Amino acid sequence: MQNQIFRLELKVRDYECDIQGIVNNSVYQNYLEHTRHEFLISVGSGFVEMNKNGIDPVVYRIEIDYKFPLKSGDIFISVLNFEKKGNLKLIFNQEIYRKSDTKLILQAKVIVVVLENGKPVKPDFLTEKLEKYKNSVLK
Amino acid sequence: MQNQIFRLELKVRDYECDIQGIVNNSVYQNYLEHTRHEFLISVGSGFVEMNKNGIDPVVYRIEIDYKFPLKSGDIFISVLNFEKKGNLKLIFNQEIYRKSDTKLILQAKVIVVVLENGKPVKPDFLTEKLEKYKNSVLK
Amino acid sequence: MQNQIFRLELKVRDYECDIQGIVNNSVYQNYLEHTRHEFLISVGSGFVEMNKNGIDPVVYRIEIDYKFPLKSGDIFISVLNFEKKGNLKLIFNQEIYRKSDTKLILQAKVIVVVLENGKPVKPDFLTEKLEKYKNSVLK
Amino acid sequence: MQNQIFRLELKVRDYECDIQGIVNNSVYQNYLEHTRHEFLISVGSGFVEMNKNGIDPVVYRIEIDYKFPLKSGDIFISVLNFEKKGNLKLIFNQEIYRKSDTKLILQAKVIVVVLENGKPVKPDFLTEKLEKYKNSVLK
Repeated sequence: MQNQIFRLELKVRDYECDIQGIVNNSVYQNYLEHTRHEFLISVGSGFVEMNKNGIDPVVYRIEIDYKFPLKSGDIFISVLNFEKKGNLKLIFNQEIYRKSDTKLILQAKVIVVVLENGKPVKPDFLTEKLEKYKNSVLK
Repeated sequence: MQNQIFRLELKVRDYECDIQGIVNNSVYQNYLEHTRHEFLISVGSGFVEMNKNGIDPVVYRIEIDYKFPLKSGDIFISVLNFEKKGNLKLIFNQEIYRKSDTKLILQAKVIVVVLENGKPVKPDFLTEKLEKYKNSVLK
Repeated sequence: MQNQIFRLELKVRDYECDIQGIVNNSVYQNYLEHTRHEFLISVGSGFVEMNKNGIDPVVYRIEIDYKFPLKSGDIFISVLNFEKKGNLKLIFNQEIYRKSDTKLILQAKVIVVVLENGKPVKPDFLTEKLEKYKNSVLK
Repeated sequence: MQNQIFRLELKVRDYECDIQGIVNNSVYQNYLEHTRHEFLISVGSGFVEMNKNGIDPVVYRIEIDYKFPLKSGDIFISVLNFEKKGNLKLIFNQEIYRKSDTKLILQAKVIVVVLENGKPVKPDFLTEKLEKYKNSVLK
């Protein structure tokens, strides 16, 4: 991924694999979510803290292209970038690579909206922090 | 189980099975928890509602004897009974059977304490309801 | 969904809900997978059996639009239909509704390819069964 | 834990937490399993490799004492030791500590038997490796 601004190294655990001996499809969504949440923490806006203040980023739409499966014990790199879309949406572009040979495992596009007490709000407080972080990383 | 007072019929889902082709050990704890929570709802004390009121039943100790594994597609019966232990503890005795032949899958003893705003309290409000339910069922 | 050919009724379990008190995003993928697998069983092509014969339907791409969250205890209806796409792909169109008021919870498009010993094959043996089933249901 | 012979540092992920805002009970069993499996790999007997050779260590009984809950973002240390019990059983003594203050989170005793093609066998091949590893670590 060009211009990735955050990366996380993780390892597949046996209990995440299914009868086929590979990571179950839904588990990748856990990996993707964990990556976004760790990113938010590094930006200074932890998910749990936002939730306590009535602010909930929620996934509006997700698209995942599965390219190649991870197996038990595989170490992988989960990267992301983001962009604004209109007034209300944030798009996280995410990819997962196998570490040993940088083989592409999946690509995902995750559209997030931010709810405040249940209603969609302009996520300016968040995007400002995110943009600042992006600029500091990509400089 | 003698004197079971609650039973729930469930079916193994493929994503609950691991590389060995059988239900992963930790998933049984989900089954056991779900059975207790459905029991609490049937007694009129849903877990989520209690949580909203600052009351949290928490597992203090669990013992599970695994007898035989469940496989993908197996239908099983999850049963429970309970007893008080001292002033502060509730013991749930739980068993899971395969439906087709009543083969015993596991036995569990789950000791629960009730926290109110983080402190252990006598769970009288709960045990009264539970005893009432038990008496109505076993009569 | 027009022309749904399979439906499954399920209930949210407490352990499937996260800090926000709603079903975690990745759990919906479990629901969707379980629905497809139950459908395959009803068609006579169980997932586990196919896997034993070296045949693995795998998800190639998934798109999920999250419309409204499910909460603890909600009963929901998961429905699907399917279509062929080109020679190698099957598309499952899936939706989840809350049972109480048929509120739409999510829509998903799941593109599946069938691997035989790791290579993509024309899924004719499967689509024939699926079409037969569809015709019998929609008649 | 005195004489711990293996330790693993892990971090709680948001999706592992439930409505109470703490790690769900069943997730700890995932942590415990992952710790045992990582230990087996470090000893040279990976779980997946054994499974491919028809050898399956299975949990026979588990006892868990929950002392204090982990929350989202907590970093924790998972340690283990083991002992033989009779001819057929291995006991893994496991503990989880919060890293920041070494607060004890849980203690577990996990009794494992080894099946070869479905039948219990003396796990000598395994215990020899384990003992060797233990001696090298505790020296």
